[in-house]
Amino acid sequence: MNSFGNQFRLTTFGESHGPAVGGVIDGCPAGIVIDHTFITNELRRRREGDNATSQGLTPRLEADHVEWLSGLMEGTTLGTPLSFIIKNSDCRPEDYESLRDLCRPGHADYTYNEKYGIRDHRGGGRASGRETAARVVAGAIAKQILHDKGITFRSTHHDHEVCCTINGVPTGVGNPIFDRLNARLAYAMFSIPSAMAFAMGDTPDAFRLSQQDYPDQWREHGIGNTLTLTNHCGGIQGGISNGMPIIFHVGFHLPPTQPDGMVCRSSDGGLHHVAPHGRHDNNHIPRLPVIVEAMAAIALLDLLIT
Amino acid sequence: MNSFGNQFRLTTFGESHGPAVGGVIDGCPAGIVIDHTFITNELRRRREGDNATSQGLTPRLEADHVEWLSGLMEGTTLGTPLSFIIKNSDCRPEDYESLRDLCRPGHADYTYNEKYGIRDHRGGGRASGRETAARVVAGAIAKQILHDKGITFRSTHHDHEVCCTINGVPTGVGNPIFDRLNARLAYAMFSIPSAMAFAMGDTPDAFRLSQQDYPDQWREHGIGNTLTLTNHCGGIQGGISNGMPIIFHVGFHLPPTQPDGMVCRSSDGGLHHVAPHGRHDNNHIPRLPVIVEAMAAIALLDLLIT
Amino acid sequence: MNSFGNQFRLTTFGESHGPAVGGVIDGCPAGIVIDHTFITNELRRRREGDNATSQGLTPRLEADHVEWLSGLMEGTTLGTPLSFIIKNSDCRPEDYESLRDLCRPGHADYTYNEKYGIRDHRGGGRASGRETAARVVAGAIAKQILHDKGITFRSTHHDHEVCCTINGVPTGVGNPIFDRLNARLAYAMFSIPSAMAFAMGDTPDAFRLSQQDYPDQWREHGIGNTLTLTNHCGGIQGGISNGMPIIFHVGFHLPPTQPDGMVCRSSDGGLHHVAPHGRHDNNHIPRLPVIVEAMAAIALLDLLIT
Amino acid sequence: MNSFGNQFRLTTFGESHGPAVGGVIDGCPAGIVIDHTFITNELRRRREGDNATSQGLTPRLEADHVEWLSGLMEGTTLGTPLSFIIKNSDCRPEDYESLRDLCRPGHADYTYNEKYGIRDHRGGGRASGRETAARVVAGAIAKQILHDKGITFRSTHHDHEVCCTINGVPTGVGNPIFDRLNARLAYAMFSIPSAMAFAMGDTPDAFRLSQQDYPDQWREHGIGNTLTLTNHCGGIQGGISNGMPIIFHVGFHLPPTQPDGMVCRSSDGGLHHVAPHGRHDNNHIPRLPVIVEAMAAIALLDLLIT
Repeated sequence: MNSFGNQFRLTTFGESHGPAVGGVIDGCPAGIVIDHTFITNELRRRREGDNATSQGLTPRLEADHVEWLSGLMEGTTLGTPLSFIIKNSDCRPEDYESLRDLCRPGHADYTYNEKYGIRDHRGGGRASGRETAARVVAGAIAKQILHDKGITFRSTHHDHEVCCTINGVPTGVGNPIFDRLNARLAYAMFSIPSAMAFAMGDTPDAFRLSQQDYPDQWREHGIGNTLTLTNHCGGIQGGISNGMPIIFHVGFHLPPTQPDGMVCRSSDGGLHHVAPHGRHDNNHIPRLPVIVEAMAAIALLDLLIT
Repeated sequence: MNSFGNQFRLTTFGESHGPAVGGVIDGCPAGIVIDHTFITNELRRRREGDNATSQGLTPRLEADHVEWLSGLMEGTTLGTPLSFIIKNSDCRPEDYESLRDLCRPGHADYTYNEKYGIRDHRGGGRASGRETAARVVAGAIAKQILHDKGITFRSTHHDHEVCCTINGVPTGVGNPIFDRLNARLAYAMFSIPSAMAFAMGDTPDAFRLSQQDYPDQWREHGIGNTLTLTNHCGGIQGGISNGMPIIFHVGFHLPPTQPDGMVCRSSDGGLHHVAPHGRHDNNHIPRLPVIVEAMAAIALLDLLIT
Repeated sequence: MNSFGNQFRLTTFGESHGPAVGGVIDGCPAGIVIDHTFITNELRRRREGDNATSQGLTPRLEADHVEWLSGLMEGTTLGTPLSFIIKNSDCRPEDYESLRDLCRPGHADYTYNEKYGIRDHRGGGRASGRETAARVVAGAIAKQILHDKGITFRSTHHDHEVCCTINGVPTGVGNPIFDRLNARLAYAMFSIPSAMAFAMGDTPDAFRLSQQDYPDQWREHGIGNTLTLTNHCGGIQGGISNGMPIIFHVGFHLPPTQPDGMVCRSSDGGLHHVAPHGRHDNNHIPRLPVIVEAMAAIALLDLLIT
Repeated sequence: MNSFGNQFRLTTFGESHGPAVGGVIDGCPAGIVIDHTFITNELRRRREGDNATSQGLTPRLEADHVEWLSGLMEGTTLGTPLSFIIKNSDCRPEDYESLRDLCRPGHADYTYNEKYGIRDHRGGGRASGRETAARVVAGAIAKQILHDKGITFRSTHHDHEVCCTINGVPTGVGNPIFDRLNARLAYAMFSIPSAMAFAMGDTPDAFRLSQQDYPDQWREHGIGNTLTLTNHCGGIQGGISNGMPIIFHVGFHLPPTQPDGMVCRSSDGGLHHVAPHGRHDNNHIPRLPVIVEAMAAIALLDLLIT
């Protein structure tokens, strides 16, 4: 389903070249004065990427103006559902006509066709990265609420990987067994298009943790963010935060659309070379940190207010 | 909460040294003749590990006898909740008395204390790996149902990593956006104690996927498990299975209990060296494949019967 | 939360005098050509009521134009979330300024204030009956899907009560124990503002069912809608439909706003007489059948496609 | 599914003549010393009924001994799942052999057969009232927790109706729109076998509320349980508790099994007279108040701790 979270729940909707993308946030506490400037800045991070040059980013130009439909009175949250839309103004659906009956490699075209018997072929439709704009809006609100509790996010990226650190998370967030904080974060991260790998902790490679690395040893009289000498567990023990910074890594693949065109599949299984078309990122990695933070904030806040 | 799944839902209960561990399976289809021999074998894999020597495994001896309480009539499922218990017969709670007021490093002792203000200190209580016995029982039933649909599991382990392949998954399993098959698998895998990393695909290192690797190219007239030339996406596109084998990797840390004792934390933050006590695995990795498969089977079946 | 249903899930949003009310429908099957004329007619039933004279209905004039934002391509559902808004065009928030600090009797003003510490005082805000427009839209789609399966709705009203009959429901819809079809219907009906009572069956008063009435006796070789001689159980046995028509009754109270004004409560507990203001129904009962049918259709379809 | 509640969630399992009935309670707060005597007394109320003579009650004799499997250490809740079983000791499955291929009137036999293709015909199987023993155990724990917050339950019964009053519920419990407190109560009550009608408020007949009855007028400087002059709304406005007592009524049908036998349906639709068999209540109404209170307590606590 198109919802994430139980107590702070985001539902997103919208196709890339339909009238709008948007979202409904249910469970947002009442009495919060929304910081619209912060939301705008977060959307700019998503649109332009976190690095200076922004080389290879999408040439699609969207103002990403957020239109609020409900849940606010005089700028303050009412405790009722916050809903918003971002209109798709720079649409050129005709660019995609040639893809109506073809499936691109590395995209969701084939699986949507098989699952639904129909798909919106224009710019990826529902599977487009454009849907993540709604997550960034909800994430900005979650981050604002968390920031007021002293919780801050910082993320860096290099190559295909993104490392995210969350400081100030109190002890006790997360649940044993299934709804562990790390399990919810993994779930959230793999909901981001192109996610390929996820790992916890401050080691460079959680797949190759040596025996000496484990466990993190206690610091004498340590508490909160001084609890342990190392943080290989990434701030989570038994699925529950221990007061140390939450640290995790996410690996992504590059955009599957190649600059020199691609070989597509028709419904009879035949292959067809298609020249470049539409507008796509050559490298979307710099745009991902704000989405990683948004989903982490939503997952964390959802567990925090349970 | 202590449940996983929406349509095929497992709820587990039980502490390591309480009367029993067990589970309730809700949503199991009616009319299935349960294969008790298979369940017994799966529990043996969990108890003894997948390799021949079983070096370093837990010296705790449990018969793991599954006692069925409901949901079956004359061996056949009724469509009502299947519930079962496995009694904890080989308990020695007195072994753990010295840990009542101490928190071991790398365990959930500290976080349970902080979250609940109380914890069962005997053998890890709820956080013990013994809870996974209930998952293996439910997983065995899920695998039996999936096997009847032509879906099979195979997993290998080396060092701390476990690679799992699921063959025969039809196209169309999983949902776009949040409840992607890969996101549900990541969620399921990180619910396993000691999971540290998760990655999709047939490449050795999903964190370092090179640009040439992506995307998987179509095979001419390919379909099902011949759809693409490579399987770097691990059989999932846009969160939905594409008919290729589902391939993923999970990384685990070694058991935090060290053979030469450990330095524990008292409630005032002081440190105390504690000699080895109770019974623990030196290396639990060989016991994990059956748990990985169980959780994968539960996650997959849950999406398949939605 | 502001969602109803698990597999066919409606989330509504919007305040009476905010920019819009609307909804997101998740889980609607793909490939359905939406009948917009039917939706428009259902909204007219909600606006004008089911009887000829429409005496006492709200003088608020809203075109109730449904604007679709997602989930459709060329008029056909994609399987992705259907979202829509109905703009609030005929707003006069200034009419309500005098109510900002007062709580009307029989309304949700006091409880919203106590729960959230803030409320939208303009025309009832979120608690306004206007929110039900979104339910009618979703209900119309559910009814269209059910109609294609041969399931039809008929409802009548007299005094404060509405009797609803659903024909063509196949045997086997609903679940034992908690998610019984009658329990889900009761849940759905009590989510309608001003619902006071709910009863199952074809008897005039389910509170006074005599001993001879029970049980419904089998008709020889009866099946489907000829299964039993009477239908006191309203087509549901053990929480599961038996093929007979589903029959239930809902009782509502009249609108609490009185034509000659009302005595309101200020935050210090003092009482204040307030002259009539804003626009309200004198009798909203004729407008309710379409809402009852909408919620019944959503509840039924949700269980049917599980 | 066989679960009720989101934050305080009960899952029940078990057939009437299987090894046991039982339940898992997830979300029970840690640190509560369970009052086993109270649970025993509540189970006695369920077994013997609330009136002195207990005329017509089931001749089945069950000690209803509750065996706790998890979630407790030294009598105190751990915050982990509480699970318990009540063994079915006085089983006589052979009494029911003649019903294996017949469906009784007014029971769930036919619908279970149609839905699952199989049913446990012994004493009603899963659909037996015996399942409610698990609800009474969970309800007793919920009532104990609520009692510590000053919330108390009182219920009376006459004819087929049960009136329940809950005192001390603070203002603000329940959610607008769908998860209203009254909607959750209606849902909970209709999950009780043989429920036929539900109504809110202190009026004798909520289906016939006259125009003068509505709304409840404010009492000057009233607050909490003195808020309004009347309580026709039953303590709930806009789905949220207002501090007045919660009052509701539930109507039940009598047990469908008749003392002089019954006419059953075979799978070919033929009718067969069956002499009395097994053991059944002639009148189960006196046994219902404790079940009504249990479900109300579970529904209320679930909303209260959200």
